[in-house]
Amino acid sequence: MRHSALHDQPCSIARTVAVLGERWTFVILREAFQGQRRFEDMQRGLGIARNILADRLNRLVEEGILDRRPYRQRPPRYEYRLTDKGRDLYPVLVALMQWGDRHRCGDAGPPTVLVHEACGHETRPHYVCSHCGEEIEAQTMRSEPGPGRLAPTA
Amino acid sequence: MRHSALHDQPCSIARTVAVLGERWTFVILREAFQGQRRFEDMQRGLGIARNILADRLNRLVEEGILDRRPYRQRPPRYEYRLTDKGRDLYPVLVALMQWGDRHRCGDAGPPTVLVHEACGHETRPHYVCSHCGEEIEAQTMRSEPGPGRLAPTA
Repeated sequence: MRHSALHDQPCSIARTVAVLGERWTFVILREAFQGQRRFEDMQRGLGIARNILADRLNRLVEEGILDRRPYRQRPPRYEYRLTDKGRDLYPVLVALMQWGDRHRCGDAGPPTVLVHEACGHETRPHYVCSHCGEEIEAQTMRSEPGPGRLAPTA
Repeated sequence: MRHSALHDQPCSIARTVAVLGERWTFVILREAFQGQRRFEDMQRGLGIARNILADRLNRLVEEGILDRRPYRQRPPRYEYRLTDKGRDLYPVLVALMQWGDRHRCGDAGPPTVLVHEACGHETRPHYVCSHCGEEIEAQTMRSEPGPGRLAPTA
């Protein structure tokens, strides 16, 4: 159920939003990263219509981002867990959160803070260059054609 | 024109996707970061319907993410530039791109690569902790309520 006009572009941003690019999908993923696994719990946390939640969960399972497993037989009930591919989306949620923290919170401060359990401290992650280790800023970056520019869509 | 069910949540992810959360918006921002400023150039690069592009650009201007300036008087023509608030979205695009590079490119490799002009090298940015400097991984992170949890929406 990908959005083909986007999925067919030689662009990893377009291909990713062809899969994810619906508002509710991002907050469903937020729930999954916070450890919510069950439909009822997610629905309560999100305030989302049941049919929309069911549809978005199905798509995330089809895309291999969530794994669906039965946890009860009668009546059948399933839980949803992030796959490795799903966990790879964590930076997307961090980036969305930080923009909202900066531009959508007013003086009250962020509704949620992140703690890096490895060091035990509250953290505001930032992107660094894999070569020089310096912080990444948009003004110091440019894009160039990569090896897959002319390849057919995967 | 924000999506109010999301905008009213005490969550910076929800508030951000309330503004951005439509697939085409992300690729319009990609064009803006690549230096495209004019409607016609963006439309050619995106393969998007004119009315959709006009609508999404208007929303981005309303939200203060793009700035619209006239560049010709007769007929009136405008160009669109990222504001500082818009440039703060760069990490969102990097994160979306990297997931697509990993999971949507097959063996061909990424269609686009990033160059860090400050050091001159191709780069694959990664998030590090603002406290300890170590790379961020989803498994070592947790969320906690922040100061703005109970505040009214900004």
